[in-house]
Amino acid sequence: MEVFIIGSGNVAYHLALAFEANDIHVDGIYSRNPKNAETLAEKLYDTVIYDDTDFSDSQAQVFLLCVSDDAIEDLASTIVLPPNAIIVHVSGTKEMSVLKNAITPNIGVFYPLMTFSKQVNLDISVVPFCIEASNSSTQKVLSNLAQKISKKVYFCSGAERLTLHVAAVFACNFTNHLWALSKEIVEDLDFNILKPLILETCKKAMASSHPAEVQTGPALRKDHTTLNKHKDFLKADDDLLKVYQLLSESIQNWHK
Amino acid sequence: MEVFIIGSGNVAYHLALAFEANDIHVDGIYSRNPKNAETLAEKLYDTVIYDDTDFSDSQAQVFLLCVSDDAIEDLASTIVLPPNAIIVHVSGTKEMSVLKNAITPNIGVFYPLMTFSKQVNLDISVVPFCIEASNSSTQKVLSNLAQKISKKVYFCSGAERLTLHVAAVFACNFTNHLWALSKEIVEDLDFNILKPLILETCKKAMASSHPAEVQTGPALRKDHTTLNKHKDFLKADDDLLKVYQLLSESIQNWHK
Repeated sequence: MEVFIIGSGNVAYHLALAFEANDIHVDGIYSRNPKNAETLAEKLYDTVIYDDTDFSDSQAQVFLLCVSDDAIEDLASTIVLPPNAIIVHVSGTKEMSVLKNAITPNIGVFYPLMTFSKQVNLDISVVPFCIEASNSSTQKVLSNLAQKISKKVYFCSGAERLTLHVAAVFACNFTNHLWALSKEIVEDLDFNILKPLILETCKKAMASSHPAEVQTGPALRKDHTTLNKHKDFLKADDDLLKVYQLLSESIQNWHK
Repeated sequence: MEVFIIGSGNVAYHLALAFEANDIHVDGIYSRNPKNAETLAEKLYDTVIYDDTDFSDSQAQVFLLCVSDDAIEDLASTIVLPPNAIIVHVSGTKEMSVLKNAITPNIGVFYPLMTFSKQVNLDISVVPFCIEASNSSTQKVLSNLAQKISKKVYFCSGAERLTLHVAAVFACNFTNHLWALSKEIVEDLDFNILKPLILETCKKAMASSHPAEVQTGPALRKDHTTLNKHKDFLKADDDLLKVYQLLSESIQNWHK
């Protein structure tokens, strides 16, 4: 099987390298940013850089749109593909149907549930891939392709992908922001003091059958002396105080 | 040096085992729960179980009050200690001064910034210990003691400990609750799908110079299409919707 990568950002980069490492040839690359495309192609074996969106002479069977959400729909409708090609996007938020104006009826989603940065190495074999397809032969090709690079392949409907994406916002984007707020609270004290506790909390929650079972802290204990002391400490910062109050209430609502 | 453990909960358990593992004899144990005290003493070498609060014949030099916050003050004022003994509590929230009615002027705080469970093994050498003391000789003894079991010993005032504790609530209690909410959102889908992403997000934030630098997600991108889709998804659950809205706003305030 051969693949074609459209885009040259973080996801394009990691997927392209993972395919190559697992003997799936990346036949072509196209990017609006030719310099990024070149940098990526240099890391691959015998990959053609395209400078327009006519890919009809490519040997690839699967074309992966690794571009920003807003660019998917327009790009999909302008790309020219070889016969029987499959085109997929890799977005957690976009419906499969944004590809409905593509030149091929073989459309799908190939969504890696992961955060990617070019400068951070990643073991892609543990990354969950959520697959959706417009027909069963496409689904089979996509799941085979995903299984070449990952041990964790799931079939997900658009509704399920939306559910996972909302859950990921809570579990990752929001928690990351709380770490940023926490770093701000400690100010000139060393944030490193908190890191062992943060890592252990994460480890414990992931090992539990439900994170709620390992919940701790003053809100859970209904320790009003400490809650009031903390609110008093935060009173100069309206944003921090609101977050403290709402999440403390949410913990108490949950565990009542 | 010899120590005495008052209490038999999670902190008492881990500290006692860490002392013993580092050749510091646990001379005595006292707990309101004699059965727990017995279970702990069985894991230690030659440790006397006391059944009242007269510890005046103990060989220990440092007495560690590993009891719930609300029990510290009363217990400290009733305990009888040998001459020149040091008494400390291990709480992140209580002032050192709650020990002021103890029989000794040598009081202090010996606070491990960590979450403990009896059933989870822990490398105590990476646990940060925050030390405070009423005089310099006591401070020296406590920091020596902490250094026997941990590589990370800090001197912290009560105000600094309060700061760290508030920051820990954001970084640990609140993040754990967000993972619980996330698990609830995925419902009958497999929460394991999210775990690699959660672990990677945590790893990335801890490796960054500021977690705000590795922030991602629709709120940061001001991606109103996705934000509205998510709010619509959550509209049946008022608590989840409020958390989503406030944290998305907080991310946008921070990064504007």
